[in-house]
Amino acid sequence: MKALYFDGKNLVYTENYKKPELTKGHSLIKVILSAICNTDREIIKGYRPNFRGVLGHEFVGIVEQSDDESLIGKRVVGELNEGCGNCIYCNTNREKHCIDRKVIGIEGLDGTFAEYIVLANHLIHEVPKSLPTEKAIYTEPLAAAFEITSQIHISPDTNVAVIGDGRLAFMIAQVVALTGADLTIIGKHQDKLKNFASFANIKHNQGDTYEIVIDATGSSSGIETARHLVRKGGKIVLKSTYEGTTNIDLSYFVVNEITIVGSRCGPFEPALKLLDRGAIKLPEIELWELKDYEKAFSSKAFKAGFKF
Amino acid sequence: MKALYFDGKNLVYTENYKKPELTKGHSLIKVILSAICNTDREIIKGYRPNFRGVLGHEFVGIVEQSDDESLIGKRVVGELNEGCGNCIYCNTNREKHCIDRKVIGIEGLDGTFAEYIVLANHLIHEVPKSLPTEKAIYTEPLAAAFEITSQIHISPDTNVAVIGDGRLAFMIAQVVALTGADLTIIGKHQDKLKNFASFANIKHNQGDTYEIVIDATGSSSGIETARHLVRKGGKIVLKSTYEGTTNIDLSYFVVNEITIVGSRCGPFEPALKLLDRGAIKLPEIELWELKDYEKAFSSKAFKAGFKF
Repeated sequence: MKALYFDGKNLVYTENYKKPELTKGHSLIKVILSAICNTDREIIKGYRPNFRGVLGHEFVGIVEQSDDESLIGKRVVGELNEGCGNCIYCNTNREKHCIDRKVIGIEGLDGTFAEYIVLANHLIHEVPKSLPTEKAIYTEPLAAAFEITSQIHISPDTNVAVIGDGRLAFMIAQVVALTGADLTIIGKHQDKLKNFASFANIKHNQGDTYEIVIDATGSSSGIETARHLVRKGGKIVLKSTYEGTTNIDLSYFVVNEITIVGSRCGPFEPALKLLDRGAIKLPEIELWELKDYEKAFSSKAFKAGFKF
Repeated sequence: MKALYFDGKNLVYTENYKKPELTKGHSLIKVILSAICNTDREIIKGYRPNFRGVLGHEFVGIVEQSDDESLIGKRVVGELNEGCGNCIYCNTNREKHCIDRKVIGIEGLDGTFAEYIVLANHLIHEVPKSLPTEKAIYTEPLAAAFEITSQIHISPDTNVAVIGDGRLAFMIAQVVALTGADLTIIGKHQDKLKNFASFANIKHNQGDTYEIVIDATGSSSGIETARHLVRKGGKIVLKSTYEGTTNIDLSYFVVNEITIVGSRCGPFEPALKLLDRGAIKLPEIELWELKDYEKAFSSKAFKAGFKF
């Protein structure tokens, strides 16, 4: 089958990748759309030095074979993290934190830049019939934004700042806006900031102002900007991951009783539901043939991906 | 009056300190007991380079004069932080975070190592008649421990580790034990650890084990020990303040969705109530005359202080 894989150094396109085989408790899914995420770019740069295999983890597909008959023929999206099923994390609704987890396209499992993938049945979510595939493709990154409201309470009468004006910040801002909170975007790129203007305040930095500050900069400087912006007694949500360590004055967080919340993958069902209801506005994905992967990876579109 | 003040370099004992004058909305309190806190030692070492005046902030006293008549003659304890009364923090139940706050014995106000202090009426709490002064003296540090349960939910069926075996750790452990949670103390001093044995597990480090880890080491190494001990998806409460910055891998906290909670001063009423009910077991304070301050400050007792 067609696939785009990482050989440890480069991306390689092939039409002869071995089609995956169905295993117990899993489904064979024909991929119809798969999107590029920043994590894919990071892996090519060396973020996961041990990973070899097909990249990609954002997808929409059709279940072709499964030992769960109710799934066959369904249009679906899927979660990334497949736990061992037996540990404290798998047993306490934290499968994504399983120490022995496999993650499609990232750790131990082939990903979705291919004609077929195999995925555990319990990670599969049916896409509502009324939701177009080109919108359902946003389920995974939008779920990561919904992780914030599953971790902390954002009251409608509070004020929230999102630092960053990129894709992740846009997803997060959409979710925060739904709470009714007074939302401000702190960004550097005027061309990107204008996309937020219909549902958020666009301001420059102002210190000691926001009860909740969400760092979506993807940069180690985010925590310092957040510290400057957040009110004493407030919360900082960290969404950025990056290489290396950061030097911070932890006593400041103690004296001013600031909470720092690390936040990663999130729940798929709310993302699917809100996309289906049209409550989330997202630009159209730019689609390429898999063989044109170089153009897709260098695209400046809000979101680029592959159609099969 | 007798007082022990900090002149910017040293502690100075005098019998001729000017007795404070009653001001509007305040009470004049005759101090009957005042205890030494680690913060007092830190100030002598240079933690508050701009502070000059009487040290001390843990006390029990009798109100002698007040424009609130209901307070006169009462045996009382008092909170430290006096806010401006007009800012967002003072107006949202966060007076201790007021940027223009004064703090007795620490910032802008004379403290309690003196025969008299003046304190804002709204910071004063009456000591229950049945609670001895020698126990009521623990109200302030115990309140700092209760701040943890006012910030986060500690479920009785969870497991909690406290890192540290000093005074602060002992206060915190007492409060956590009241929740019924499975409590483990991670410490280095066998002689101190034995004091915890009747109500907590005494173990050495074991990684990835505890849903909640509370750092009471007073050291910058606490966060790294806590990171090692806490479960993914869990919480770290930081109670330690110290000079300088710490180098940490923030992405670890994002990927593993760990929350860091900064925690400082806490609520007095629960501390007074639980002390009065005999639910908190604390060693007896060792008491000295104010003029013997050098002996008091070098005491190895669990708690040392001054009687007037």
